[in-house]
Amino acid sequence: MLQNIRVVLVNTSHPGNIGGAARAMKNMGLSRLVLVQPKVFPSDEAAARASGADDVLASTQVVDSLEEALTGCTLVMGTSARERSIPWPLIDPRECGAKAVAHAAGGEEIALVFGREHAGLTNDELQRCHFHVHIASNPDFSSLNLAAAVQVLSYEVRMAWLAAQQAPSAVEALEVGSPPSDDLATMDEMERFYEHLEKTLVDIGFLDPAKPKHLMPRLRRLYGRSSVNRSEMSILRGILTETQKVVRGDAHKRKD
Amino acid sequence: MLQNIRVVLVNTSHPGNIGGAARAMKNMGLSRLVLVQPKVFPSDEAAARASGADDVLASTQVVDSLEEALTGCTLVMGTSARERSIPWPLIDPRECGAKAVAHAAGGEEIALVFGREHAGLTNDELQRCHFHVHIASNPDFSSLNLAAAVQVLSYEVRMAWLAAQQAPSAVEALEVGSPPSDDLATMDEMERFYEHLEKTLVDIGFLDPAKPKHLMPRLRRLYGRSSVNRSEMSILRGILTETQKVVRGDAHKRKD
Repeated sequence: MLQNIRVVLVNTSHPGNIGGAARAMKNMGLSRLVLVQPKVFPSDEAAARASGADDVLASTQVVDSLEEALTGCTLVMGTSARERSIPWPLIDPRECGAKAVAHAAGGEEIALVFGREHAGLTNDELQRCHFHVHIASNPDFSSLNLAAAVQVLSYEVRMAWLAAQQAPSAVEALEVGSPPSDDLATMDEMERFYEHLEKTLVDIGFLDPAKPKHLMPRLRRLYGRSSVNRSEMSILRGILTETQKVVRGDAHKRKD
Repeated sequence: MLQNIRVVLVNTSHPGNIGGAARAMKNMGLSRLVLVQPKVFPSDEAAARASGADDVLASTQVVDSLEEALTGCTLVMGTSARERSIPWPLIDPRECGAKAVAHAAGGEEIALVFGREHAGLTNDELQRCHFHVHIASNPDFSSLNLAAAVQVLSYEVRMAWLAAQQAPSAVEALEVGSPPSDDLATMDEMERFYEHLEKTLVDIGFLDPAKPKHLMPRLRRLYGRSSVNRSEMSILRGILTETQKVVRGDAHKRKD
């Protein structure tokens, strides 16, 4: 099930960190690395720091956007160092490991997302995550090395995975209340929904593109934590489509 | 109490690992680093990888023997990758963190000991430890980078320390993932929202009261599991109000 968990590094500057991340992943049994616009890759420095995790580097996918990196995922957790203006569901690495394993066991695709060495993830990128993961650290010196952060989350994934091996029922217990995984809307379906929703809100005059007032981030946060399944998604999309027909004036008018 | 916990690195070959260890320690609130016969120290490479943990490097003690490094300690825990011929009390990093914090809180001096990059600790060195710590890893690729191993143990020390503090932050950590409860929409507010939603869906022609097709139950299930808070509720109600204006034809028309 660990093969359902991918590690996504966004705009990494130092190739040594890519190698260090690959090694940390393989040590913990993870193998799928996706790089969004890395500054340098492949590189000798990455290979040296990978120190034998060559297979992870060889199968690493390089993509142009975070959206592409998240294709097919139903659970996305991104590391966040800072307090944000819009509070988001915040978990610690242990909860992150437990969630990743519980959802991967149900056949879902999971992404753990890590930002740039100095700047982390942008607000826009963070808003594509279902959960933000904060690694508790010294407030006076809080920024972990990128490969070290990958190590901590990968370690917690492995601890949760080992616990699940010993007690499969514990994993099932974690899943109570969630819809069956093959039924969940994927990240790309969610993105198309958000685009449709935004367009509709503009059409009805609720969202002013000149003054968006964090409206879309708030709606992303609401639907993002709801594990929307496919039948619900088709209802939500249907509502938007009907609303747009009303705006265009070709609505199936209510008789009253 | 964290100042009672020292990290001891034995015969480290690569100065970059010393810097990486210092950074990982400082990130997790540890400050006392002791080096037993390092190959190179001090060095620019260590300083570069420490990335700001200069104070840890500046106060690092360099000694000639493990015995000297352990002076004053009453609890010594050493990392061990392999099964040893002589079985020893074996714990995982989480137990190591808990023991370190419990003993440090009692005023004891604690050492976490890490061996050479390729060969680990010798049997003689391991026998000076009260406990061996094994970081669970992929059996086919088990050897962690030295700084990564320091990161994992230091992280578990910090997690145990935060739990022991019972500080407001630790209590808040228990509540992560949910909005504060006084912020949640109440059951009656949710009911008014569902009434408003149903009426709007009828108005736009999406819900046929003669053939409701379980639409409202499905939407109740979706929003019901989302712990909708008050600001989100006011957004959702606002969208419905604007949609109804469009239906009535008095919408704030989009200019395009």
